[in-house]
Formats: sequence, structure tokens, C-alpha cells
Amino acid sequence: NVKGIAGFSAPYIVYKGKAAFSVTPVLPTFTKLDSGLHVVDRGGCMMLKFTPAIGERKYDWEKRQLFALSPTEVGSLISLGSNDTCELFHDPSMLSSNAGQVRKSLTVKPHSTGGGYMISLTVVNNILKTKDYISVPFTTAEFAVVKAACSYALPHIMGWDRVTEKVEKVNSGRRTP
Amino acid sequence: NVKGIAGFSAPYIVYKGKAAFSVTPVLPTFTKLDSGLHVVDRGGCMMLKFTPAIGERKYDWEKRQLFALSPTEVGSLISLGSNDTCELFHDPSMLSSNAGQVRKSLTVKPHSTGGGYMISLTVVNNILKTKDYISVPFTTAEFAVVKAACSYALPHIMGWDRVTEKVEKVNSGRRTP
Amino acid sequence: NVKGIAGFSAPYIVYKGKAAFSVTPVLPTFTKLDSGLHVVDRGGCMMLKFTPAIGERKYDWEKRQLFALSPTEVGSLISLGSNDTCELFHDPSMLSSNAGQVRKSLTVKPHSTGGGYMISLTVVNNILKTKDYISVPFTTAEFAVVKAACSYALPHIMGWDRVTEKVEKVNSGRRTP
Amino acid sequence: NVKGIAGFSAPYIVYKGKAAFSVTPVLPTFTKLDSGLHVVDRGGCMMLKFTPAIGERKYDWEKRQLFALSPTEVGSLISLGSNDTCELFHDPSMLSSNAGQVRKSLTVKPHSTGGGYMISLTVVNNILKTKDYISVPFTTAEFAVVKAACSYALPHIMGWDRVTEKVEKVNSGRRTP
Repeated sequence: NVKGIAGFSAPYIVYKGKAAFSVTPVLPTFTKLDSGLHVVDRGGCMMLKFTPAIGERKYDWEKRQLFALSPTEVGSLISLGSNDTCELFHDPSMLSSNAGQVRKSLTVKPHSTGGGYMISLTVVNNILKTKDYISVPFTTAEFAVVKAACSYALPHIMGWDRVTEKVEKVNSGRRTP
Repeated sequence: NVKGIAGFSAPYIVYKGKAAFSVTPVLPTFTKLDSGLHVVDRGGCMMLKFTPAIGERKYDWEKRQLFALSPTEVGSLISLGSNDTCELFHDPSMLSSNAGQVRKSLTVKPHSTGGGYMISLTVVNNILKTKDYISVPFTTAEFAVVKAACSYALPHIMGWDRVTEKVEKVNSGRRTP
Repeated sequence: NVKGIAGFSAPYIVYKGKAAFSVTPVLPTFTKLDSGLHVVDRGGCMMLKFTPAIGERKYDWEKRQLFALSPTEVGSLISLGSNDTCELFHDPSMLSSNAGQVRKSLTVKPHSTGGGYMISLTVVNNILKTKDYISVPFTTAEFAVVKAACSYALPHIMGWDRVTEKVEKVNSGRRTP
Repeated sequence: NVKGIAGFSAPYIVYKGKAAFSVTPVLPTFTKLDSGLHVVDRGGCMMLKFTPAIGERKYDWEKRQLFALSPTEVGSLISLGSNDTCELFHDPSMLSSNAGQVRKSLTVKPHSTGGGYMISLTVVNNILKTKDYISVPFTTAEFAVVKAACSYALPHIMGWDRVTEKVEKVNSGRRTP
């Protein structure tokens, strides 16, 4: 009675010596109200995944860390000037009793030598007493792909592709007497 | 015999201390002519909604004020330079006997300290003798989302998604003898 | 037995004191080869229309002049720097016996006072011994809409919306033993 | 039992005195896993074709050389500053026993006089003892079309148009008691 996973997977992946990075859009889900209108149930995001290397071209998928960018956080990324740094903080347990126990911070910082960015994720887990730091260098070209792909995906993770969808009904009443 | 509301709702909402702001595209409607051609009946717009706060995380939806951006006004917004200010004026009763009685003005102004914008709506109603002023501060990231989302929506509110739609008929006559 | 005109019409129109301007995308048409592949038959364009005024809010549609921008000419328009001028020349009778008899030139020029552009069309017809000059001032916002709408339409008039179309067939052979 | 070629062909072609250049997107192919999820089988690219001229408006299609840009290489192209040069290297036999025998390099370089770019392809084939060099000058307008068209195509060659595709299923469970 388990249903298969529908849909398509095509993350943009950057493999580097110490870690791999991937990014993929996650669409919002909608709930249909009694009126027939669909409203956002769970918001969409851009899912970033950081995986540390454990050897040449080998990555430790067990130690993968996630960071989900909200639409506004995508706005931070795509409006980043060429010398700007941006830092984003998440608490995955926010509003629960574990609030503050795990802190994630994502930093996007231009290389001091110019041309490209370093994207780093720090995860401090006070429950497990661990601190992980994974960092991936991006060339200008790789970062341009991330920005262009995030710009493309932004209206989709906001659900605006659904809002601007063609409704087949055509107004034909207003000019009728 | 009342039909349900079809379609999807996914406004981009920014909640701030003194007010909330939302923006959502409204598509044009079309009328089908006898020739079969569909022409624009009512033009599309970007609908901005400003709602004043009445307490922590509580907003007074009764006092919500609307401002509908035309495609050209969206052009003002998306072409705004980083130090530019833009001001737009609307008279919701234009061309009626109440013309001039209600004046709305929208101002988009960069923060003097840099990084972000203040978007303000002033509504002067000479009939009700009221003057409302609602103002929402935007971070650079939030404003980037508004610009990117408006850029995405612009061709849709102009109806160009319909104009460029794939027509299933394919020309096969011209190279036939 | 005459078929109606299918499709949608939604030109972006700018009405000014001396003339009106409109722009709308015209899609390419395709021919299906025996192999099943569809190739471009007639290329797409952005159709510009200039109509002189003959009174307040009245335009002389009989004197309308057209100028069809090719994809490369759209490239000129969307890459125009804020102080740049561009000039495009067309000979509607090119390659026919009337070549050189009618010359059209389109000029896009920034206002000397800054903020916006003047778009002008000159049509010299040596057969009819006429010379028409129609000129429309654009605000920064109106020009931003023209650029954004042309950028949106460019892949469509090139036919790339069809090229990147989802083909329903999915490759399932290569990983089968 | 040979199936026809489905789909549409609409390359953007620039014809110049010494050579012709064309660019067209090539979509990724997907494999359906047992789970129902589709994953990328063969990645997409932008296919560049360079054809030397052998006379006025005649091109030697037998000597055509190809260069397939990966998504990251498209990132190089679309992020190219107005004075920047970019150079990309390919080895079509990489990972085979012929590795290193054929080397292709693509150079994109601004004209020293400003306004436009030269795109050149060099192919050194140590097996055939040949060296081909094909070079095509681009105006600013032509290069703007290549950049805009590549920006449009990028999410498609990455497969993100499939990932962001509307899934008809709508979540209706979470708010049900």
C-alpha cells in the first residue's frame, strides 16, 4: 500500500575535494478549501545539502547536513553584490521544547582573491555535543548557475507558477447585455 | 448555484511590527470576439495589500488598504535604481462623480542608512474625512523577492503568457506544392 | 468555411500626445518534415506599431506604420546601455525588384535630460514620394516594460519554448541489461 | 521499425564571412526508478556548432565542429563581464584509451575595439594530425541573444523545468482531523 515517489530529481551538484554541495527546489503544497480555492499548506524552499568527503571522490552521505532556504533567504542570495557577504541562521527546533539546542548558520562569502565564493555551513548541536563545519568553494561560473537556478526556481517555490496558471474559463459575460 | 472559487492563492507576505504587506498577481480577463480572437477585457495588475498592526503579531484586516499596480507601474518598481525613489498616485474614483475625493499615493524609498527600502501607502479620503498612512520597512532580501516576483509576474499580468502560448496547429501548407 | 482567428491578443500599448506605440510578439511557424522533426518555416518577431495622433486621444489607424524586430534586433534593444543609442534599418522589399524603394529606420535614443527614451520611426517611400516620421517618448518605467516584455518573449519568437518542451517519452533503455 | 524524430529544431544561427555559428539546447534524459522517481540519465547541454565557409554564403557542413556546454560552462558564459575573457577545454575521449588525443578549446573574448565578442574554437587532433581553428565575430546584439537564450535554456538543460512541474496531486490530508 506504499505509493511510489512521483516526480523528477535533478539537483545541481558541485563536487569538491573536501565536500559536495547540492541544491534543488522543493515546491509548496496546497490545501483545497471548501470554497474551491487552494491555499499554501507548507511553503516551498530551496534545499541545500552539504556532504563531507571521506576520500578521493568519496562522500560520507551519513554526515550530510541540510539547510532549507525560504523565499526571502533566496532573495538574500540572488541580490548578493560581488563583494557582499551574507549569513543566515536557522534553528530547526524553533518553537519546540528543544529550541536553541541546534543552531545552523550558512555563510556566503566572496573569495578574498576575487572570482567566486565560499559557501559554508556550521551546525552546532548542544544535545549531541557536536559541531560540524562544511565548506565548499565555488567558482564564479558555479555560483552563477546557483544564482540563475535559484532565480528561476523562486516563483515556483513561492507557488506563483500555480497562481499565474492559465484558467481555462474565459470571461464572456461582461459585454453581454 | 454559487460556484466555488477556483485557482490558487499564494501571496508573498512580509509581517513587520507596525503593519503587514502582501503582493499577489491578478491576471487579466479575456473576451472572445466573434472572429475567435481573445482580447483583453480587464487588464491584470499586481495587487498590494497593506494591513496595520493592532498588537503583537495581530493585524487589523478591516483597515486593510489596497493598491493595484498596472504593468507600467510594475516597470517603475523593477527599474528602480538602488538610490532612487518612486511615487505613484491613484484615484480609485477617477472618471466617476467622486473623482478627486479619494487619493492614494505609494512611495518606495531607499533607507537612508542603505540596505533596503521603505514602502508607504497614504490614503486621503475627503468623503470620510480620514487619512491613513501605513508604512512597511523592507530588507534588501525582501525587496529583491518583490522585484524578482514582479518581474516574473509582469508578462502574466500583461497576458503575454497567453499570446505566446503554444497553438497546437502546425503550418504544413507552405512547402506543399 | 472560413475559420476564425484562434489565439490571444494583448499588445502593450503606450498612448502619447502625438502618436501611439504598441508591441506584441509574433511566434514562428513550423513545418513538419517527413522525419517527424519540426523546423522553423517563418521566423518569429516582435511587431512594433506606430500610429500618429489626429486629435486628443484619437489616432489615425490608416497611417499606422509597422517595424518587425528580429531576434537579433531584440538583442540590440535589451542590451542597450542607459546612455546608448541604437538605430535599425529595414527594407521591406529587400530581394525583390522594388529593393531600395522603401526605407524604414528605427531609432531608440535616451532623453538628453535623462530618464527614458525616444523611439522614432522614419519611413521613406520613393514610389509614393512620401516620408513619414513618428516619434513616441517613453518614460523609464514604460521602457522597462518594453525591455522586460521583449526579454520574456525572445525565447518564444526564437521557437525555443518548443525546443525545450517536455517530450512525454522517458528514456528507460540505457540501464536495462 | 525506425521511429521518426519527434520534437522541434530552432537553432539560433549567426552567419559570418568565414564561418557560421549555431546554438541550440539539448535536454537531459531521465530514467524512471522502481520507486517511480525519475533521475537524470544523460545530462543536458547547450550544443554549439561551428562551420567554416567555403565561398560566399556557402558553408562546409562536413567540417563542422561541435562543442557541448555543460550547465556550469553556461554559467561561465552568462556571468562574463564586459571586459572578461573565458576559455573552456574539452577532451572528447576523456576516460577512454584515446584520452588526450583530441583537445578542443573554446575562447570567448571581447573585441579590443569594444562592442561585441569573438568566439573561437580550436580542435587539435593528434590521431588525424589535424588542427582546426574556426572563429566567429559577434556583435553586442548577437552576443546578447546568445546570453539571453542560454539563460532561458539553463533551467531546462538542468532538468529543473521537470522538477518544478505541476504535480496534479494536491495535499488534502494535513488539515483533516
